Amino acid sequence: MSSTFGHAFRIHTFGESHGAAVGVVIDGCPPRIRVTGEMIQSALDRRRPGQSDIVTPRKEADTAEILSGIQDDHTLGSPIAIAVRNTDQRPGAYDEMAAKYRPSHADYTYDAKYGIRAQSGGGRASARETIGRVAAAAIARQVLLARFPDLEILAWVKSIQHLEAEVDAATIDAATIESNVVRTGDPAMVQAMIDHIKAVRADGNSVGGIIECVIRGCPPGLGEPIFDKLEADLAKAMLSIPATKGFEIGSGFAGTLLTGREHNDAFVMENGRVRTTTNRSGGIQGGISNGEHIVFRVAFKPTATIMSSQQTVSSDGQDTELTGKGRHDACVLPRAVPIVEAMATLVLTDHLLRQQSIAPVS
Amino acid sequence: MSSTFGHAFRIHTFGESHGAAVGVVIDGCPPRIRVTGEMIQSALDRRRPGQSDIVTPRKEADTAEILSGIQDDHTLGSPIAIAVRNTDQRPGAYDEMAAKYRPSHADYTYDAKYGIRAQSGGGRASARETIGRVAAAAIARQVLLARFPDLEILAWVKSIQHLEAEVDAATIDAATIESNVVRTGDPAMVQAMIDHIKAVRADGNSVGGIIECVIRGCPPGLGEPIFDKLEADLAKAMLSIPATKGFEIGSGFAGTLLTGREHNDAFVMENGRVRTTTNRSGGIQGGISNGEHIVFRVAFKPTATIMSSQQTVSSDGQDTELTGKGRHDACVLPRAVPIVEAMATLVLTDHLLRQQSIAPVS
Amino acid sequence: MSSTFGHAFRIHTFGESHGAAVGVVIDGCPPRIRVTGEMIQSALDRRRPGQSDIVTPRKEADTAEILSGIQDDHTLGSPIAIAVRNTDQRPGAYDEMAAKYRPSHADYTYDAKYGIRAQSGGGRASARETIGRVAAAAIARQVLLARFPDLEILAWVKSIQHLEAEVDAATIDAATIESNVVRTGDPAMVQAMIDHIKAVRADGNSVGGIIECVIRGCPPGLGEPIFDKLEADLAKAMLSIPATKGFEIGSGFAGTLLTGREHNDAFVMENGRVRTTTNRSGGIQGGISNGEHIVFRVAFKPTATIMSSQQTVSSDGQDTELTGKGRHDACVLPRAVPIVEAMATLVLTDHLLRQQSIAPVS
Amino acid sequence: MSSTFGHAFRIHTFGESHGAAVGVVIDGCPPRIRVTGEMIQSALDRRRPGQSDIVTPRKEADTAEILSGIQDDHTLGSPIAIAVRNTDQRPGAYDEMAAKYRPSHADYTYDAKYGIRAQSGGGRASARETIGRVAAAAIARQVLLARFPDLEILAWVKSIQHLEAEVDAATIDAATIESNVVRTGDPAMVQAMIDHIKAVRADGNSVGGIIECVIRGCPPGLGEPIFDKLEADLAKAMLSIPATKGFEIGSGFAGTLLTGREHNDAFVMENGRVRTTTNRSGGIQGGISNGEHIVFRVAFKPTATIMSSQQTVSSDGQDTELTGKGRHDACVLPRAVPIVEAMATLVLTDHLLRQQSIAPVS
Repeated sequence: MSSTFGHAFRIHTFGESHGAAVGVVIDGCPPRIRVTGEMIQSALDRRRPGQSDIVTPRKEADTAEILSGIQDDHTLGSPIAIAVRNTDQRPGAYDEMAAKYRPSHADYTYDAKYGIRAQSGGGRASARETIGRVAAAAIARQVLLARFPDLEILAWVKSIQHLEAEVDAATIDAATIESNVVRTGDPAMVQAMIDHIKAVRADGNSVGGIIECVIRGCPPGLGEPIFDKLEADLAKAMLSIPATKGFEIGSGFAGTLLTGREHNDAFVMENGRVRTTTNRSGGIQGGISNGEHIVFRVAFKPTATIMSSQQTVSSDGQDTELTGKGRHDACVLPRAVPIVEAMATLVLTDHLLRQQSIAPVS
Repeated sequence: MSSTFGHAFRIHTFGESHGAAVGVVIDGCPPRIRVTGEMIQSALDRRRPGQSDIVTPRKEADTAEILSGIQDDHTLGSPIAIAVRNTDQRPGAYDEMAAKYRPSHADYTYDAKYGIRAQSGGGRASARETIGRVAAAAIARQVLLARFPDLEILAWVKSIQHLEAEVDAATIDAATIESNVVRTGDPAMVQAMIDHIKAVRADGNSVGGIIECVIRGCPPGLGEPIFDKLEADLAKAMLSIPATKGFEIGSGFAGTLLTGREHNDAFVMENGRVRTTTNRSGGIQGGISNGEHIVFRVAFKPTATIMSSQQTVSSDGQDTELTGKGRHDACVLPRAVPIVEAMATLVLTDHLLRQQSIAPVS
Repeated sequence: MSSTFGHAFRIHTFGESHGAAVGVVIDGCPPRIRVTGEMIQSALDRRRPGQSDIVTPRKEADTAEILSGIQDDHTLGSPIAIAVRNTDQRPGAYDEMAAKYRPSHADYTYDAKYGIRAQSGGGRASARETIGRVAAAAIARQVLLARFPDLEILAWVKSIQHLEAEVDAATIDAATIESNVVRTGDPAMVQAMIDHIKAVRADGNSVGGIIECVIRGCPPGLGEPIFDKLEADLAKAMLSIPATKGFEIGSGFAGTLLTGREHNDAFVMENGRVRTTTNRSGGIQGGISNGEHIVFRVAFKPTATIMSSQQTVSSDGQDTELTGKGRHDACVLPRAVPIVEAMATLVLTDHLLRQQSIAPVS
Repeated sequence: MSSTFGHAFRIHTFGESHGAAVGVVIDGCPPRIRVTGEMIQSALDRRRPGQSDIVTPRKEADTAEILSGIQDDHTLGSPIAIAVRNTDQRPGAYDEMAAKYRPSHADYTYDAKYGIRAQSGGGRASARETIGRVAAAAIARQVLLARFPDLEILAWVKSIQHLEAEVDAATIDAATIESNVVRTGDPAMVQAMIDHIKAVRADGNSVGGIIECVIRGCPPGLGEPIFDKLEADLAKAMLSIPATKGFEIGSGFAGTLLTGREHNDAFVMENGRVRTTTNRSGGIQGGISNGEHIVFRVAFKPTATIMSSQQTVSSDGQDTELTGKGRHDACVLPRAVPIVEAMATLVLTDHLLRQQSIAPVS
């Protein structure tokens, strides 16, 4: 089920970076949900290459074509297929990389697994694969909003290497995040982050960082108690994004430094609702949402492809060197923000539909 | 699929903490694998309560009964059902907790999801649920060893609150870990950790920490490239363990502080094999193992049940206070070590069988 | 997923015929459904051996033990594990059969698939495996009735070899079927069928026949349009019952003799509801229920184990002869009636929960 | 999972009859399998409309476009997406049918399930949906042949209404079947069948019939013993084809008229191989192939859309009449032959890969 995600709301992505198209088939989407082509396109535009001067200049319009499942801007309940043509492949740029394994990339492991790999570009191990996820999440979002109009899923750049943003997960809004090309939630850090990314790129180098995400307005009761805990599915979703190395929810790794007395979230009644006075749980307890903000963080390593010479081996087993070519992000985080939101949206939608199967959610 | 884990090697766990039994059904296990009752029992004994004076004194022999699927110490290829009777329930100890939501526990969220919950004990939200996982992993381990006799999966306590162990993932061995009741890999830290856990417990408090795990001898080529990346499945597996708040692989969150030039793992040929000079990737690239050590860390929060008075609400919506009762670990990490190993074993076995379906692993 | 059935309401069966126990784990069952031990036990009693003088005399009380998931006669939403001990194994009776492949049984194919098989009894290829299905269906039935109190699922023996019953699917009731040990719906055929089964058995021979089943009161809209058509899932469910060789729904094979003009079911309005004037569709159109009676038939071959000498080969590849021993039904149909009902119940419950996930069923 | 078929070799179909495209995504296909565009196209050409004067004249070239997963005529191991544009929609022809429920078609049940349906054409309930299945099976066939070069899967028209062909499943060959537009295996019946279909069509009527299929050269040991029995998966696969009403394997319904002594297949050794002297089992015992020919039959009802006036109701609940329009097959069987073969191919491929996961097939 490698290219399938979800149990009730299921997506199947397809497509190589330099093949004819990338895309997705969504199955299990409820009928009669309003979805327009613009909704999908504007979601794709947020993760598109070339959208600012700190991301890869690859020129892809990433125009989504809806092949099935939507009629007159409403879902039919049948599979929704969406394809995006690849138009700006430059296979020539990859000739050398086809014969040599790029360090910290997936060239070698694909060969080890399949005994074959896409000769040009990253094949499936490309950020282009996430196009299908983002398109699917644009539809999933409408499913969620149809039931919970106040639900919000917002991600932002929390840090770029050592540069850390101060962001309040309870109050941050989309406009603030989208107001800057880094997609950080802290206006005070924008320029420093932009400058740092540009300096690193100019040096033929790359950087990573941390993206933080909040889900606000999630009702209590979503999630499953054992293996498909809401936080476990979020962890898997996030670690399935290329270049990720870590996930933490609520208090996360830092929470290991507290005692239970410090860490526990006390319950209180508030306007007839069960609330907690603190939120070290990160909105999930025992795998199930408790109605508080769901807050988590995702670590992204520095981009593997750098424009510097590196030691490596060729696919025929010779020690050699390789200097990166092609058009790559020196820092993937600005474009990864919508992907983190997309995966969170897919997880939540899947759990909403799963919950409805046993106890319809009103 | 809440209580199901795995696609090819699939386990289905069942059982409430204070019900008749807990257990597991394993489906998809290859036939003719040698498995003895002792193998399963000794795995369960490692996670059993009452095994030392720093863990819960609940008296459970945790005797595994094999109900099906094994004949004359060999698997038949049919489902293997294993049940463990609960014998030391003390429902009385839970009367107050049945009416009040324990802070940072799953009582409230189970009610929110199901509108009903086990009246006594933690129901499914109990460490006893992990018995089925550990039993299943004891069998999975034999499946792995049948093909890769040198494969090792070892976990240890990396830190207890602020106390951090120094352990070399490349050389640590099982005997060192098992030589102390904390299950840390650093002999120098054993006594301090034991003293700290006892002091915290004496204070009616609790602590958490970090468990580190290494998989040595994993062949290159296991894992799936997109959603079921080996690290994504490990992340999900670990976050499905009760009390976990974070997962990181290889360089993890700290890796975000490096540049690409510092972070990339250079490839070199070594005895005809492709190797990397460093291992910030943590043994996995693009979701697929590269033959290096797979190294990851899991954050465990401090135990939620503490023997101190805490603010909470009752299940009928009244503000109240609650003091923990029952027998609980002041620190779950020593007993969580075999659970981390078990989940890693299950993930790897599943991916081995999945890989065999497309390209038989020799 | 060999031993798993269902997507939303999922059952996992386990157990060899002559092992310690057989049973089932049910996952995905909605919470707060009333289920008593008596409901499960009375369902098992209908398929139990030794219930009349025309079925196998194997003495099994088939006492169901609920290991988890039910508290105070209500489901918790967690996995429900049920085990039934095997008590009347007579391994000795199978010594010869362990070394020789019983004709038209699964001994040879299990060896071909697994390279090993249960040395005694039929292993998984035994009617005892269906105990878990019947127990699970007793619970599923309560899920269905909780929403559709008038829904009825009734099966009966339509024919025993050449002896055919006349039964009106629209009016047949459970009392009529249960009033006779054959479980036919035609009182006029009861004695002839009993006499025939006894005569065949006395001759060391066996017979098969056809079971017919009706689902009355199924709402329109259940089922899935493409691969998981309601009739496709019913077909699979029925062909998964041991000894079945065919399935047909509505007009079935005989419908191929009609023209479209004769075969089509005209729609009419009746009390504000869409109805059909005939029901050659068998209650399902395009994979989805249309609110009419769902009617289908299942062919059962004559029991493979007969008390006569037959030509066969030994497991070490020698031509030989074998005479059946052990306690077997000369005709499985009377005991297969509750199994057909059980599988139909499981299919319908699964599709109800699936439908709820996309559009809550009121 | 409505639009997904298979566990290890999985296909996901998409597309409405009158939407932009229909197609399929295949996941789990082994790498390095040789597949050319011609292989896929020639498979599609066999089920294409307009291929002879006894099938629908709808003009669709059904040109397959491979969007991903294949490079230089070899599979990459990644998802293979294939799309076929719909080019000859004539929505106008369906105006009346959009407002009225076509008898014995899926219009009403789609509305009951989804509360919405494709306004034109049959939506998903169209033979065009099977394009994705046939394209996927063309690839699956190469997977099978790569391991079992002598394996053959052949289907033919066994009967058209009352006209029955005499065909020997052991010796029939593809050339004989393809030599006539009916795709029957009995040259003596070709002209009568053609004449009958034409006469029925001229009368504004339709007919059904039976398709028989044989799988020759299947090794023993494929299939799963309980729910996913090979015959159960075949039954589901066949009943998932539009217009099917029944499935039987081996002796089928007629086998219920035999006694066990007559019905059992005796085992004999033949050239060191276990064989059976007869094949009433139809090549499968206990859900697992035994190495003999797998033989089954599928009942197809007469086409629902007929060019005659029929009683029906409108989607707003008024009694009315409807006369079919559009371009439809008066008999679907000639075009259903490749679909039956395709579904059988998909089932077998899935079980081959599943078997490899537990015990690599040599």
